Amino acid sequence: MSNVPIKEGERIDDLQRNNLKIIQNSEKFCFGIDAVLLSDFADVKRGERMLDIGTGTGIIPILLTAKTEGEHFTGLEIQHESAEMAERSVLMNDLSDKVSIVEGDINNAKELFKNNSFDVITSNPPYMIGKHGIKNPDEPKAIARHEIKCNLDDIIREGSRLLKANGRFYMIHRPFRLVEIFETFTKYGLEPKRMRMVQPFVDKEPNMVLIEALKGGKSHINVETPLIVYDEPQKYTEEIYKIYGYKE
Amino acid sequence: MSNVPIKEGERIDDLQRNNLKIIQNSEKFCFGIDAVLLSDFADVKRGERMLDIGTGTGIIPILLTAKTEGEHFTGLEIQHESAEMAERSVLMNDLSDKVSIVEGDINNAKELFKNNSFDVITSNPPYMIGKHGIKNPDEPKAIARHEIKCNLDDIIREGSRLLKANGRFYMIHRPFRLVEIFETFTKYGLEPKRMRMVQPFVDKEPNMVLIEALKGGKSHINVETPLIVYDEPQKYTEEIYKIYGYKE
Repeated sequence: MSNVPIKEGERIDDLQRNNLKIIQNSEKFCFGIDAVLLSDFADVKRGERMLDIGTGTGIIPILLTAKTEGEHFTGLEIQHESAEMAERSVLMNDLSDKVSIVEGDINNAKELFKNNSFDVITSNPPYMIGKHGIKNPDEPKAIARHEIKCNLDDIIREGSRLLKANGRFYMIHRPFRLVEIFETFTKYGLEPKRMRMVQPFVDKEPNMVLIEALKGGKSHINVETPLIVYDEPQKYTEEIYKIYGYKE
Repeated sequence: MSNVPIKEGERIDDLQRNNLKIIQNSEKFCFGIDAVLLSDFADVKRGERMLDIGTGTGIIPILLTAKTEGEHFTGLEIQHESAEMAERSVLMNDLSDKVSIVEGDINNAKELFKNNSFDVITSNPPYMIGKHGIKNPDEPKAIARHEIKCNLDDIIREGSRLLKANGRFYMIHRPFRLVEIFETFTKYGLEPKRMRMVQPFVDKEPNMVLIEALKGGKSHINVETPLIVYDEPQKYTEEIYKIYGYKE
C-alpha cells in the first residue's frame, strides 16, 4: 500500500479483498454494483491479458487482480480526471506491474492497441441511448451513463477487433437492449454463449443482464439462474454478500 | 358438447376451463405444459384473428377461445392424424364457428392463407435442431419435437408474411436458441418486445422461454420476472395452478 495524493472531494474505500482500496469521488466517479457483478461474472484465466473498456475508477481491473490469475489488466478511460484518479488507485495498491490505465477513446483503438491482442474484454458501458433529458452532456456522470462519447456498436466493434480468436467479451447492460446487444455481438463475430439476468428481488423483473460472448463461437447460449440482489429491502442475498467479499 | 368418434389409444381430457375437453393419444399426440404456458402468455384481443402454427392436438386455439375474446382461431398442422384428431376436438366442443383446423405445411403458407391476414400468430414449434439421435424421423413425436418438416426460419418467415402490420407473434422455445430466435425474428421484420423465462424451480436455470414479437416494432424488450413451475417436486406454484385453471 503506497501513499498517493488525494484530492478534494475524493475518498478511499476498502474493497474487502486482498486489502485493496480504491479512490472515488461521489460527485463525479463512483463505481456501482454493476461493476462488481461484472468482475465476478468475468473469468480471466492464468496468463491471460484483459482490457476493460470504459474503466472509470479502475474498479474492474483492480478487482480482477485479486479475483483471477490473469497476467495483465488494462483499463481504458476517455475522461481525463477519471483516468488520472484510477491511475492513483493503481499506484496506491502497488499494482503498476499488473494494471495499466490508458487514457483514450475506444474509437481510436487501432492507434492504442494491437489487433487480436487481448484474451478477455470487459465493459460496463453507458446504458442509455442518446442524450435525452441530459442537462449537461459534459458532466462526468452523464458521460458514464449515456452514449455520448461512444455507443454499443463502437464498444463491441472495437472490442472484437482487439480480441484474439476464441477470446471472451464480458458485458453488463440493461435488459431492454438485449435484442440489440445480441445483434451487435453477432454482427462483429462474437457469439453470446452465457447470460445471467440480475433481479433486484426474486419477484421483480431484471434490471441488469450479464453476457459472455465468444469470438468465433457457435450459436448456443446457456441462460443461467437469475442473480437476486436483495432478500429484503436493504439486505443483500448471501450470493451478493459473497460477491462483495463481506462474508467469506 | 357433441359426441364424436374416439379411436383406439385415444382419451378425452378435461381442460378445466369452460367445460372444454380435448382428445389426446399418449402414444402419438399429447400437449405439454409448453402449450398451456404459451396460451396464457399470448394475448388475442376482441375481434382479432389468430393462427397457431403446428397446432398438434389443437390445444392452443381451443384454450384461447376460453381465455380471450378473439374472433377466430386457426390451427395449422402438417400431420394428418393429428389434424384429424384436433378437428374432432373442435367438433366435440361445438367450436366449429370459432376454430378451424387446417391440414398443411407452413412452407405452403402462400397457398393456404392470405398475406397480412392474421392479428396474432402463436407457435410451440419443434425445439430440436436436425435429426440427431432420432431412430424414426416419421414418428409423430419426432416430427413434433425435431425440425424435420420445418425449422425456425420457416415458421418465423411465413408467420411474418401472414401477420398484419403491428401483428403479434407469440412463441415458446428453448433458451439455448435465444440468440438465433431474436436474429430470425428481426430478420423478418418482427421485433421481440417481451420475454419471460420459465424455470422449473426458483433456483434452477430456465428450460423454456416465452417471447412476444411485434411486426414493425422498435428495438426495446421488456424482460419479465421468470415464471417458476414448481414450488417443490410434484407441487406446482400458485401461478401455474392458476394458468392450468385448477384454482380460480
